[in-house]
Amino acid sequence: MNFPAHWQARREWIDRALDEYLPPAEAPPTRLHQAMRYSVLGGGKRLRPMLVLDSVAAVGGEPEKALLTACAFECVHTYSLIHDDLPCMDDDDFRRGRPSCHRAFDEATALLAGDALLTLGFQLAAQNAEVKGVSPERVVRVVAELSTAAGATGMVGGQVMDLEAEHREPDAALVEAIHLRKTTALIRAAVRCGAILGGATEKQLEALTQYGKLIGLAFQIMDDVLDIIGDEKTLGKPVGRDQERAKVTYPYVFGLEQSQARAQELIAQAQDALSAFGSEADPLRALATFIVQREQ
Amino acid sequence: MNFPAHWQARREWIDRALDEYLPPAEAPPTRLHQAMRYSVLGGGKRLRPMLVLDSVAAVGGEPEKALLTACAFECVHTYSLIHDDLPCMDDDDFRRGRPSCHRAFDEATALLAGDALLTLGFQLAAQNAEVKGVSPERVVRVVAELSTAAGATGMVGGQVMDLEAEHREPDAALVEAIHLRKTTALIRAAVRCGAILGGATEKQLEALTQYGKLIGLAFQIMDDVLDIIGDEKTLGKPVGRDQERAKVTYPYVFGLEQSQARAQELIAQAQDALSAFGSEADPLRALATFIVQREQ
Repeated sequence: MNFPAHWQARREWIDRALDEYLPPAEAPPTRLHQAMRYSVLGGGKRLRPMLVLDSVAAVGGEPEKALLTACAFECVHTYSLIHDDLPCMDDDDFRRGRPSCHRAFDEATALLAGDALLTLGFQLAAQNAEVKGVSPERVVRVVAELSTAAGATGMVGGQVMDLEAEHREPDAALVEAIHLRKTTALIRAAVRCGAILGGATEKQLEALTQYGKLIGLAFQIMDDVLDIIGDEKTLGKPVGRDQERAKVTYPYVFGLEQSQARAQELIAQAQDALSAFGSEADPLRALATFIVQREQ
Repeated sequence: MNFPAHWQARREWIDRALDEYLPPAEAPPTRLHQAMRYSVLGGGKRLRPMLVLDSVAAVGGEPEKALLTACAFECVHTYSLIHDDLPCMDDDDFRRGRPSCHRAFDEATALLAGDALLTLGFQLAAQNAEVKGVSPERVVRVVAELSTAAGATGMVGGQVMDLEAEHREPDAALVEAIHLRKTTALIRAAVRCGAILGGATEKQLEALTQYGKLIGLAFQIMDDVLDIIGDEKTLGKPVGRDQERAKVTYPYVFGLEQSQARAQELIAQAQDALSAFGSEADPLRALATFIVQREQ
């Protein structure tokens, strides 16, 4: 299988769907809609929707029946980026190679665009029940998974812990606790929701949950690593921001080399978690490898 | 029926449920959880959850089976208040007689507490499917209703229009368009979701939708009126803020007297919309009357 071609095709498919599901730029309130579209359609790896679709396929389901849920995850992810960038949070001026939402528009619009995207995420997830062959039972599980992963015990909780930990003496337990909530929860949920919609058995769901958790952690470690050794142009945002803000990061606690080794190790474990799957899981295997090799 | 006693009992029931569903104050991240609890449990009329429960009863359903959804609406409502009060939005220091969330905590915590409450709203709505006798079909409809009412074409859209309209020459069409989105959408959805969970017929749902829209509009008109003639102590927030910010309000366009008359008229129409219902809808009738007589 030619993975770059597979990803390219998937990315185009996801981008077309997002373009369709987002409110039109010319419909009022236009400024809100434009801000939502600016942030969602301005690039991005589409890792979370990709994971939804590839997990559906890994358990023998039909990815096109989960496209709405895949896009729901991208909306929720983008909302978190917009709010993270706000002045009262990380105060970042750049994202994906362009001015961040509140710089391109204004603070109030960015706040509300984030709110609207989080809400749209749940709207799309619910809408998935209208797709033929998708049971409402599964959709309710997806909404529960998505909200748990995004909420106070997941992504938002991780964000708070991340802010609270600034300038504090970090240790391994703290950095892992933050990473598990801030990034891993949503990535793990994307994998789980794909599995649920695809009709996974309990055993398959368990294996994929493990896979999702391991690649989620590895992804955030690599994010921390790239903030040190990455190329600003490729990343689309300035590097060195973590150190500037005295963030609790993996490299800060373990050093650069050990962090990269840890990410490699997690990815190897993630591959092991997929051992019972056949070639249907090859895209998930390739995604795991991509995570430690990526430059953006 | 003794309505004040009915409301008092309902309010206590809702407050107990919210206390149970919100994350515990002592669990980490404590600051986030405390901010969420501060804003939700710090008083409020509980109008939206009340409407959910009374609508269930109006169509012959069991209100206790919709308690999670009732609380979901209060979480979504409270999130909107927290974000509205932020400095980049209305910049309000007081809410429900106490410092607003970002004044009692800080901006970042208030932003994230709002995000977490919106997310919790969807989590509680989804959790309602675990209640015996509640079908996942109905829960999926509730999630769809709630997200549509809260999102870009509903509450968030109304918020944007409200900000955009500041200092602009208002007319009747603009003020109604804003009110329909900013306040009415969520109130109407609360009534609809109660009806859906209670097993309403299409005809009942239609009548209750009409009722919800009419009382929602009347509620916002009275909100505008109370901002002029209300008592700060009873309201728990300073009055005259709309004029200060040159907001587009009903009294600004129509004058105080005509606004009050319009609210009365809408409530009369709302009562008419309930004409096919028996005494099961008496609490909804009383709520409508309360809306134009309220002082807070």
